[in-house]
Amino acid sequence: MAATKTYLTGIQTSGMPHLGNYIGAIRPALEAAREHDSMYFLADYHSLNSVRDPERLRHDVRSVAATWLACGLDPERTVLYRQSSVPEVFELATVLGAVTAKGLMNRAHAYKAARDRNAEAGVEDLDAGVNMGLFNYPVLMAADILVMEADIVPVGRDQRQHIEYTADIAGSFNHLYGAGYAFPIPEGAFPEGESSLLPGIDGRKMSKSYDNHIPLFLPENRLKKLVRRIPTDSTPVEDPKNPDTSSVFQLLEHFADADRSAAVRKRLEAGGMGWGELKNELFDVLNGIFGPMRERYDALMEPDSELDAVLEDGAERARARARATMAKVRAAIGIA
Amino acid sequence: MAATKTYLTGIQTSGMPHLGNYIGAIRPALEAAREHDSMYFLADYHSLNSVRDPERLRHDVRSVAATWLACGLDPERTVLYRQSSVPEVFELATVLGAVTAKGLMNRAHAYKAARDRNAEAGVEDLDAGVNMGLFNYPVLMAADILVMEADIVPVGRDQRQHIEYTADIAGSFNHLYGAGYAFPIPEGAFPEGESSLLPGIDGRKMSKSYDNHIPLFLPENRLKKLVRRIPTDSTPVEDPKNPDTSSVFQLLEHFADADRSAAVRKRLEAGGMGWGELKNELFDVLNGIFGPMRERYDALMEPDSELDAVLEDGAERARARARATMAKVRAAIGIA
Repeated sequence: MAATKTYLTGIQTSGMPHLGNYIGAIRPALEAAREHDSMYFLADYHSLNSVRDPERLRHDVRSVAATWLACGLDPERTVLYRQSSVPEVFELATVLGAVTAKGLMNRAHAYKAARDRNAEAGVEDLDAGVNMGLFNYPVLMAADILVMEADIVPVGRDQRQHIEYTADIAGSFNHLYGAGYAFPIPEGAFPEGESSLLPGIDGRKMSKSYDNHIPLFLPENRLKKLVRRIPTDSTPVEDPKNPDTSSVFQLLEHFADADRSAAVRKRLEAGGMGWGELKNELFDVLNGIFGPMRERYDALMEPDSELDAVLEDGAERARARARATMAKVRAAIGIA
Repeated sequence: MAATKTYLTGIQTSGMPHLGNYIGAIRPALEAAREHDSMYFLADYHSLNSVRDPERLRHDVRSVAATWLACGLDPERTVLYRQSSVPEVFELATVLGAVTAKGLMNRAHAYKAARDRNAEAGVEDLDAGVNMGLFNYPVLMAADILVMEADIVPVGRDQRQHIEYTADIAGSFNHLYGAGYAFPIPEGAFPEGESSLLPGIDGRKMSKSYDNHIPLFLPENRLKKLVRRIPTDSTPVEDPKNPDTSSVFQLLEHFADADRSAAVRKRLEAGGMGWGELKNELFDVLNGIFGPMRERYDALMEPDSELDAVLEDGAERARARARATMAKVRAAIGIA
């Protein structure tokens, strides 16, 4: 048995990530990707269940890929590809559908949540607005994972059921066809991100749904404006301040190096540093980190940039792996 | 607009057809195929929902393909391919899932029949034994049809709902993405076969479920035995007989040419022809038609026969068409 385990991560392609996503998901994932054999796929066919505007879908997929590359994903070390570049995924989903009980899907969280929303809204048909893409999604996700023979799937805790379902579905297949081929049973990994600690510009947890987030790559003047909007109290400049109750300082602490944070903490506690100056400091730190990334992002988003070549190369590597799996699956089920 | 319409037929790959299938489906389909641009696909991934034995699945698919070729399907004129040879089908099914209401599937006949069977058997979970392949099957069938841009789909009347669903699903897609690409809306054709008239060896309608059928390609001695088993009354040889109440004569009339049928009818009505002689006559007619076909079938079923080359060629022609459709679909939805 090879000791090397393959890590597979699916990335939703819904708009630009924010600082909370960076701290909670992107940065730890990129750190892990340096240590493991990793694959990242852009779940573009998943987006199709909600995004009906082709221009937006096209843009979002490129934007998310460019974001991860700008944040430091090394496409030599890590395979980055679009789900839609690997047709074997959809064929495998068809195979897996034949060994997946419908009852399992009836109990899937996302589907049940959609029914609950209908019930709360007084809609009689609980399936109203539910499409087959949503209902069948756990099967497609199992195919995403199993076609790559992934061992470890790092996900948020809210995604734990998907990993359990994938293991169940792989188990059904192995039970029926194990004499010919058996999938490795993947495990979830639940990295403890720090996103829950990161405040948004209104002091609450940073989240798109609160509309209090700072997107990763903003032009300087827009970043400066957002930082200025973070509320502060009216303590005068010369008075001592408690850094630990200040959202601005908390943000700073997440992004500045330890020395710089400690120096600012000292000045705040001593008095004489105003909120305006603290905000300038935060802007400077954020712009220092994300400014160069933004430039890289902007370059990748140009038409005919190297982004397309990166995705093309990732697609080829991912397909080679998927084709090998499907050849084994087909032989085992009697299709080839 | 091209005047040429494309006819697409799916063939279930479940065991060898019988004389009733030949008269009711295969012969009229082959006659129609001489007049139209036709495509036939072997629905092997559909079989996967029920056939779990890889050797049997492999055999059944070859057997059904060999049967149609032996019966006269011209693979130059008609594209014959395996569903599993066209991965674009499964990708398109994923696209169509995103525009298909789950409620439509809840009302599908095959799914409802499975629930009714559970209800009748007193099974509490009405979804027991239902897999996602069955539940999602109408979406896959829509993809089978739409990926080939088929115009006409000849099916039995019990399959009418599938065509209606396909038209519905195509309509949803066209409504959302018609600015970029619109599927031609397929129509069902419901050829009036004669199968309901063909008696089995017990006098009832010939059907696998009655186990009274005569498979198409039997060794001579087994065919002779089956014909001998058809029940007759005890009218003596020399007495006149009514051909229209005799299952043996009805079978003869379906397969013998008009002159021969008329001559036999005359002899039966005049008296002097016994049932044994009539059965010899029927055997002779059937063996005359199906004997040469059986030889061709047996040759095609040999390993490394030309069957594989025929299916390979069909796969290439089918894929060329499917790829062209998917390129248009992808551009329209924003995936490419």
